Amino acid sequence: MSVKNIYIIGVGLIGGSIAKDVKNLNPSISIFGIDAKESHLKEALKLNVIDFKATLKDIAHADFVILAVPVDVSVRILPGILDLVSDDTLVMDAGSTKKDICKAVENHPKRRNFLATHPIAGTEFSGPKAAVLGLFKGKTNIICEVEKTAFKLQEKALAIFQIMGMRIRYMNPEAHDKHIAYMSHLSHVSAFMLGKTVIDKEKNERDIFDMAGSGFASTVRLAKSSPAMWTPIFKQNKENVIETLEEYISNLTHFKERMKADDFETIFNEMENTNYIKEILNGIE
Amino acid sequence: MSVKNIYIIGVGLIGGSIAKDVKNLNPSISIFGIDAKESHLKEALKLNVIDFKATLKDIAHADFVILAVPVDVSVRILPGILDLVSDDTLVMDAGSTKKDICKAVENHPKRRNFLATHPIAGTEFSGPKAAVLGLFKGKTNIICEVEKTAFKLQEKALAIFQIMGMRIRYMNPEAHDKHIAYMSHLSHVSAFMLGKTVIDKEKNERDIFDMAGSGFASTVRLAKSSPAMWTPIFKQNKENVIETLEEYISNLTHFKERMKADDFETIFNEMENTNYIKEILNGIE
Repeated sequence: MSVKNIYIIGVGLIGGSIAKDVKNLNPSISIFGIDAKESHLKEALKLNVIDFKATLKDIAHADFVILAVPVDVSVRILPGILDLVSDDTLVMDAGSTKKDICKAVENHPKRRNFLATHPIAGTEFSGPKAAVLGLFKGKTNIICEVEKTAFKLQEKALAIFQIMGMRIRYMNPEAHDKHIAYMSHLSHVSAFMLGKTVIDKEKNERDIFDMAGSGFASTVRLAKSSPAMWTPIFKQNKENVIETLEEYISNLTHFKERMKADDFETIFNEMENTNYIKEILNGIE
Repeated sequence: MSVKNIYIIGVGLIGGSIAKDVKNLNPSISIFGIDAKESHLKEALKLNVIDFKATLKDIAHADFVILAVPVDVSVRILPGILDLVSDDTLVMDAGSTKKDICKAVENHPKRRNFLATHPIAGTEFSGPKAAVLGLFKGKTNIICEVEKTAFKLQEKALAIFQIMGMRIRYMNPEAHDKHIAYMSHLSHVSAFMLGKTVIDKEKNERDIFDMAGSGFASTVRLAKSSPAMWTPIFKQNKENVIETLEEYISNLTHFKERMKADDFETIFNEMENTNYIKEILNGIE
């Protein structure tokens, strides 16, 4: 690819993992890291996640810019970044919401330099040390409003995604935000509130935590996620997340009422119908 | 150990995995399998999970009996098993509820032959092919009413658990059922209803499932579990599970209301407080 340098804004789990993949596939590319936390930059340098520290003022020199910061920060800084970059620079975000960021630059003179993406990959960890090689391999990358990005820059991005081993899906920002609320955001609320329920009840009974098995660990895993990353996601996708929560609460309430009524035939049937999830998960795990 | 044979009633995930551990550690022990499904017995023989097929009538010859069937079946058949076994036979269950089974044999003349246990280990799979060696290593085994079991039989059981690498905790059946509702049963309802919510919404949009990432897969994993195993657990632990569900629903509703009120400071704080789950999970995963 014709990219000589990449500027990663936010050298955490996602930004750092992209940096590692790119460096692994083309060691001659220079990777510049920009981060609000000086400690993150130091750590990223030490771990060889980035080659150099940089600041937003240096962005005019960038061939390729990746925004991997909390989604509210992306929306705030993207217009200014587009102001600074050259006509040939590709600017990409990797956020979990797409409507607000597309809206933020819809009339920007450099809209064609921006590609809205959501690589669906991650772990519950954060910061430069969470960055891992191959995080995106075999994962899905949702691209929104592809037609608004310059064709040559689309090509450049696709070449990189292909090397990273990602599958591409195209979707409009509204559909993305609606469906991702079900497929990702709801899981996070569900895990956080499961964790809260158990902690509130059992906090003073340390021995009880010995009873936690791998099933609990799996279900509550996402409650380790970063609140700084997730609060702005819930804020930007408020209407959709509230809708999923209402349906989830309604299903839980129905389950509880059926238990109260000793209607264990319905309980059995609901679980059996939901075993269909096996088919959905085939190939993800 | 002075055990020459073991009769495993229910040659699925739990019974089969115990059989594999025992055989691995002492190949001279004969393992007899009893199962309501002839197909399970055939499969267990083929996979070398058991050495011989048997029926409940053969149980008089047993040195050691392990009940690993749905909890309603255990409660129903345990008294009859105790009627048949010799004075030196150890009978153990491995169910996820402990109150009903202890109650079922509290006045049985052979109560001293029974040990109520709950080895907290498992996967979302079931049947003989789900049996794996080493499933219990490093896991917790809850023993209830240990004082009601003959001392020599306690010793025999503990020797086996030690060889399997399990940590032992003693608890009364009521406390077990109350706490396990939080640490295990609630996770299962939470995962099943998360799966149902997503399936109900997205069933006709197959492409959407490409959006499922590892976070969703982890949170919903337990929705693959066997309804035949879980319906009787929810039935036996009805009061406790309903209590956990009420608290969980209340926490989810509070989260939703805070989102509606644009109170994202509270949303942030609730998630940050729940990050404490990291400490709880340390050493489990």
